[in-house]
Amino acid sequence: MDMHQLTRELNVRNGNKIVMLVADGLGGLPMQSQGLTELETAKTPHLDRLVNEGTCGLSIPVKPGISPGSGPGHLGLFGYDPLQYRIGRGALEATGIGFHLGPQDVAIRCNFCTLDGDGKIIDRRAGRISTEQSAPLAIRLREVSLPGIEVFVEPVKEHRFVVVLRGDGLGGDVADTDPQATGVPLLDPIPQNDASQRTAEVAAEFARQGVALLADQSAANAFSMRGFSASPSLPSFEDVYGLRAAAIAVYPMYKGLAKLVGMDIVGDAKTLDEQMEILTARWEEYDFFFIHFKYTDSTGEDGDFDAKVKRIEEFDAAIPQVTALDPSVTIVTGDHSTPSLLKAHSWHPVPTIITSAECRPDRCTTFGEADCLHGGLGQFEAKYLMPLALAHAGRMGKYGA
Amino acid sequence: MDMHQLTRELNVRNGNKIVMLVADGLGGLPMQSQGLTELETAKTPHLDRLVNEGTCGLSIPVKPGISPGSGPGHLGLFGYDPLQYRIGRGALEATGIGFHLGPQDVAIRCNFCTLDGDGKIIDRRAGRISTEQSAPLAIRLREVSLPGIEVFVEPVKEHRFVVVLRGDGLGGDVADTDPQATGVPLLDPIPQNDASQRTAEVAAEFARQGVALLADQSAANAFSMRGFSASPSLPSFEDVYGLRAAAIAVYPMYKGLAKLVGMDIVGDAKTLDEQMEILTARWEEYDFFFIHFKYTDSTGEDGDFDAKVKRIEEFDAAIPQVTALDPSVTIVTGDHSTPSLLKAHSWHPVPTIITSAECRPDRCTTFGEADCLHGGLGQFEAKYLMPLALAHAGRMGKYGA
Repeated sequence: MDMHQLTRELNVRNGNKIVMLVADGLGGLPMQSQGLTELETAKTPHLDRLVNEGTCGLSIPVKPGISPGSGPGHLGLFGYDPLQYRIGRGALEATGIGFHLGPQDVAIRCNFCTLDGDGKIIDRRAGRISTEQSAPLAIRLREVSLPGIEVFVEPVKEHRFVVVLRGDGLGGDVADTDPQATGVPLLDPIPQNDASQRTAEVAAEFARQGVALLADQSAANAFSMRGFSASPSLPSFEDVYGLRAAAIAVYPMYKGLAKLVGMDIVGDAKTLDEQMEILTARWEEYDFFFIHFKYTDSTGEDGDFDAKVKRIEEFDAAIPQVTALDPSVTIVTGDHSTPSLLKAHSWHPVPTIITSAECRPDRCTTFGEADCLHGGLGQFEAKYLMPLALAHAGRMGKYGA
Repeated sequence: MDMHQLTRELNVRNGNKIVMLVADGLGGLPMQSQGLTELETAKTPHLDRLVNEGTCGLSIPVKPGISPGSGPGHLGLFGYDPLQYRIGRGALEATGIGFHLGPQDVAIRCNFCTLDGDGKIIDRRAGRISTEQSAPLAIRLREVSLPGIEVFVEPVKEHRFVVVLRGDGLGGDVADTDPQATGVPLLDPIPQNDASQRTAEVAAEFARQGVALLADQSAANAFSMRGFSASPSLPSFEDVYGLRAAAIAVYPMYKGLAKLVGMDIVGDAKTLDEQMEILTARWEEYDFFFIHFKYTDSTGEDGDFDAKVKRIEEFDAAIPQVTALDPSVTIVTGDHSTPSLLKAHSWHPVPTIITSAECRPDRCTTFGEADCLHGGLGQFEAKYLMPLALAHAGRMGKYGA
């Protein structure tokens, strides 16, 4: 039984609003044995107040021991089983720059690179060419013409751009052309199944014409193609939960993920304060708000424990702007842990709070990894967070008579 | 999604070593209400130190309420879903004596028994005939000749021996011939499906010739056949985890289980000290070591609380020989509980520790059932222990972008 069958069947529409605050990579580890984690070190008076009012627990992003990327991490929080729904890297990148993928599309992440006179790779990222240099090159690639195929070429950042091929019969399973080495030529795009045969042929022709268009360029005279992926087919928040949902995020990746599940991307915030202003301004229009805070992850990735502590405190300081709106349900969580100790995403379960008038109290008093172990939500798979949110908002009826 | 698909896909090979110490039947119960369990009673300074350094929890062998045998108990610990993979008793017994089962094989556990002049069972185990008496009888049964079938007869211990039939078209589903009663004749081997028709016919002919060969024997003049089973097809540790794995066990059953998942059986230890010597001697050759300690189970089965406490203390005393090797990950667990109170395997979750440099601390300080309830691993199905071990060893990459 798919949980979405249940959430659809039991759906109740009411005016109760849900706010989900995602501090990316929130969970952590101590830097030395028996020490405190980043979250346990941070002073978080406002989060602690939510802990006292609400129910706590630890969210397992995918399954025990599995460290997720941002895609599966967020799908889990949004209630989409991350083992059932997989988003290809190309689709993620395209969505992240605001490209709305359709059912006939295959998205490809491309890297500008440099080849020597023999066609062998000198630099797989063209010396991390600047966006100022790379964007015009990407736009030049729009001159490629492929019969029966609509081609979109979108600059991203530095050496990266996205190609979307739109047409009939394009499967998404084609191997990367990046050999992951220098001194060797680019690989041909090889189809991984019959349904992707045409995609591989079209991609090869795109590469042939594209490299010809770049022949006179010194900054980058070729490109690799990676992460071929068809558009993922995800049912929308409206469909599965009956929620008009808005995403208030700063970074394209998270806007893209939200868009894939049918959220509206509202505002163009650059800071957490601006995100809070948008939340307040758009409060009446939506049932569900996803608010994404990136810097708890990026500081963890940098291995900067103290900076992560500060970012958690910054996140904490924004909480009163949420509670002032008096949401029916407020959720605080993360898509995975990013311990400064590991400088990477990890599998460790993520501290989580749900507050609502229907919360069962537990005895947690402060927001931290060891405290949440004793919380009322226990340790749960992230995919159950949305059903819990709906329940706490009175948005799910009784199952069975 | 099979977890092994994930562990394969995310596999990272590095030099980090994992030691899994399995104290068979580790979990227990107090003998009286409000008392302590065997583990809580035992003085375990070395295990307590691991608890302080690591993360604790309780392993649910199969599902809540399910008491496993040794087969499913160990499959779970090895990361093979014990509800998906089932090992027949014949296959287990054959593997346990070092017989390497192939895809054409059906293994059968046999018990020597005694029949009266009317062919009715006098003793189902031939008075627990000694191995010295039974082994020559088993070897005599090698004279049985079956057209198109290769027959192996292997003595085991006391009244037990194993028959392996090798040939085409031999299914593994045939009913036991032991009526579980005396004063009645042996049953015919009845096929449980069409694919096992030939097996039943061949087994009946084996029994006919075999009983004729034993006709002049007073110690045992017949045998029952039980636990018919085809060779289970389990992917190997190398395949699913990228681990070169070694098993250091004393008892054939556990060597057999380890062999079924592709572990090398190393050494021929008779004691825990010898197991530790072998661990040290073979340390450089493997990535993963499974060390099996039997006596926490056998004392529990005997209902001997005090003896189980002593065996736990003996197990504890061996821990420094493991930690001296400085494994990246050390796991201490059991395949199930065997409370002395129940004198049997039980469903109660099993105290478990994982230590590694990447452990998230919890507040557990001593190793015991009630303490582990508050551990950072929570209560988890045993099949997730291997993914957790791999994660803590840095042997799994990120899932998704």
